[in-house]
Amino acid sequence: MSTAQRSIPASLLEQMLELGRAARAASTQLAQASADVKRAALETAARELRASRAAVLRANADDVAEAKARGLSGAMIDRLALDEKRLEATAAGLETVAALEDPVGQVMAEWKRPNGLAISRVRVPLGVIGIIYESRPNVTADAAALCLKSGNAAILRGGSESARSSAAIHACLRRALVQHGLPETAIQMVPTQDREAVGIMLRDMAAYIDVIVPRGGKGLVARVQQDARVPVMAHLEGICHTYVHAGADLAMARKIVVNAKLRRTGVCGATETVLIDRACAATHLAPIVTDLLGKGCEVRGDVPTQGADKRVKAAVDSDWGQEFLDAIVAIRVVDGLDEALAHIRRYGSAHTDAIITGDAAAAERFLNELDSAIVLHNASTQFADGGEFGMGAEIGIATGKIHARGPVGAAELTSYKYVVRGTGQIRP
Amino acid sequence: MSTAQRSIPASLLEQMLELGRAARAASTQLAQASADVKRAALETAARELRASRAAVLRANADDVAEAKARGLSGAMIDRLALDEKRLEATAAGLETVAALEDPVGQVMAEWKRPNGLAISRVRVPLGVIGIIYESRPNVTADAAALCLKSGNAAILRGGSESARSSAAIHACLRRALVQHGLPETAIQMVPTQDREAVGIMLRDMAAYIDVIVPRGGKGLVARVQQDARVPVMAHLEGICHTYVHAGADLAMARKIVVNAKLRRTGVCGATETVLIDRACAATHLAPIVTDLLGKGCEVRGDVPTQGADKRVKAAVDSDWGQEFLDAIVAIRVVDGLDEALAHIRRYGSAHTDAIITGDAAAAERFLNELDSAIVLHNASTQFADGGEFGMGAEIGIATGKIHARGPVGAAELTSYKYVVRGTGQIRP
Repeated sequence: MSTAQRSIPASLLEQMLELGRAARAASTQLAQASADVKRAALETAARELRASRAAVLRANADDVAEAKARGLSGAMIDRLALDEKRLEATAAGLETVAALEDPVGQVMAEWKRPNGLAISRVRVPLGVIGIIYESRPNVTADAAALCLKSGNAAILRGGSESARSSAAIHACLRRALVQHGLPETAIQMVPTQDREAVGIMLRDMAAYIDVIVPRGGKGLVARVQQDARVPVMAHLEGICHTYVHAGADLAMARKIVVNAKLRRTGVCGATETVLIDRACAATHLAPIVTDLLGKGCEVRGDVPTQGADKRVKAAVDSDWGQEFLDAIVAIRVVDGLDEALAHIRRYGSAHTDAIITGDAAAAERFLNELDSAIVLHNASTQFADGGEFGMGAEIGIATGKIHARGPVGAAELTSYKYVVRGTGQIRP
Repeated sequence: MSTAQRSIPASLLEQMLELGRAARAASTQLAQASADVKRAALETAARELRASRAAVLRANADDVAEAKARGLSGAMIDRLALDEKRLEATAAGLETVAALEDPVGQVMAEWKRPNGLAISRVRVPLGVIGIIYESRPNVTADAAALCLKSGNAAILRGGSESARSSAAIHACLRRALVQHGLPETAIQMVPTQDREAVGIMLRDMAAYIDVIVPRGGKGLVARVQQDARVPVMAHLEGICHTYVHAGADLAMARKIVVNAKLRRTGVCGATETVLIDRACAATHLAPIVTDLLGKGCEVRGDVPTQGADKRVKAAVDSDWGQEFLDAIVAIRVVDGLDEALAHIRRYGSAHTDAIITGDAAAAERFLNELDSAIVLHNASTQFADGGEFGMGAEIGIATGKIHARGPVGAAELTSYKYVVRGTGQIRP
């Protein structure tokens, strides 16, 4: 649809395009900013955030009060609310990103051609990154920090519920940019809550936004993927499996399954379905089911699993491939590795899947044949996290296969260019 | 737009979705195919193509006859027509791709975490690649070969002009797949010339196509970028610059400029604008202008360039940033490196740009500050080519910054997954 068909106010469109132009201009400066300056700016941002604690918490209290008055759910308000501890974690996060290795300028590969040309592939920033997120105000700092570290300008569009909190955090970031001679427009917030602004980011700003990162629920991500005329790096679903193979050590399997399902149930790396090999079901099924039930987890199982404990509910078809994000697990007994792979391919979301086994050959087949962003052997699916991977921080986990897959850190927010050094070569 | 609004015949949609399902199924098998089998299949394809020379040339003669009857342009017919030499080059191309290193399974990085988890990042195929191309029938073989090498299934949609030629080449590829036990559906051609089939590939097959590669003119690429609901790797424009800096050796500059502009004028790496530094204009401008004019190149210049030779035409505004793809060049005198960079940023397409200079500091600034996919020092822009980069072959040159940039070879047609090996780790 052209903008005319959508009847966007010309003033809003112009305001957004101006934001885009400013971001593009800032990105050219940022691409040349030294690693030291970017690091120092992030450290200053952390200090500014701590120094402005009172103001940020006041702004957040206003957001929370309005959200409560509007009857928002407890879960929404929990995501929105800041306290001293969360604010300190956000400041510490800025320092973590500051301390990361700077990806810009890294030589990814270099080689010489027979004609003497020296070619190198060098990391460069993507340019301008648009981040569309829901109510968590800390995303304002986290996402902006990773963009700055990777030399990208950021255009942030937060949820209306957190507008005051995000603005207060943004003010801290802006002051830090200015103190280090970086353009204030390196990190911009969309200054209006008009919902059409999102449509403009997705459809009309391809010249000014290089990639969009949606952070939020499935509804938001699906809308962004549907409407965007700009590349999108997104997280759709984490339907993660843990497969207890015949060769699994029982103690290890019990420990990993409980952790994979229950450590935190609301994260994308939480296991949603446990597959137990028929060859070890007699010994492994009942203890695992009992562990989960004992920890307060609802178990929905196939017939053999129901036989293991009478508290197990009968699983229905829609339980396979369901992203519960809650203390609920689906358990099925499978006939060996091939059936496990087939089940995961059919019902999984190619996010994170694990095999527990002492059988090295079975493990290698699982790791090799399953095309998930993260495949694990003898470890919990809850490790699906940029921090746990050693990336320091992540802007999210990408479930697509283009550009970046799995945890998206600073390096994944870069592109590359080819630098070719010659001595007068011409092409024959 | 939903398919209903576009009133696509249900039978066409179902036919295309069936193609997509078959490609997806084939891609799972291909991802597991060994490097040896893929190499052997490509070598067999080359042999099959040579053995079927007569049949392919007959099919091509029919295509050419119809194209002539329909009054297609000479350039179009030249792109369409095959002869013994072109067919042999296509067969040799299959062998070149066969001999390339197999990217699938390559460990891109590996590291160990403090908790003992061993993480590796391993190349995997993207899955299914859709290629939409115009009349060149050799793309059928070239694109399919790179997809096969990188373990991807291919869905090819060639232009209607080359339908018979492409079908004859495709038959050779299919026979090679079957001989090596690979699924015939690893390389499929869209079996209808219905234009709606392209719309379906772009909009309705996101579940079955992981990336679309358009190969053709600006019109085709723009349509694909506009309509696609699937990631696109595309080449838009090559507005390449050669900047003759004050420190340029005259003999080198003359040699490189002539090559960069005139070696082949229709390729994307051909220089379209030459910038000459005012500091060396007195010595360098006239010889370069005279060289180009002497080789039959039309020169459109600014006032100083017009002063160098009376055959120079006055450049108009639209000549800067024009992709002539012909023996025409725009020449402007600039005041130093900063003005050159500003000109290239304003008018270029961030494809390929070169500086000619003996001044190392100026060269480094140019290479570093210019954000083009390929930046060269003392070499011809005509080196912008996957073969010249040592990639063996390319499916095209990407002008975007997401996923792949510059020449797209087999490695660029892959994604990666994280393989994590543990010993019972759970996340605290």
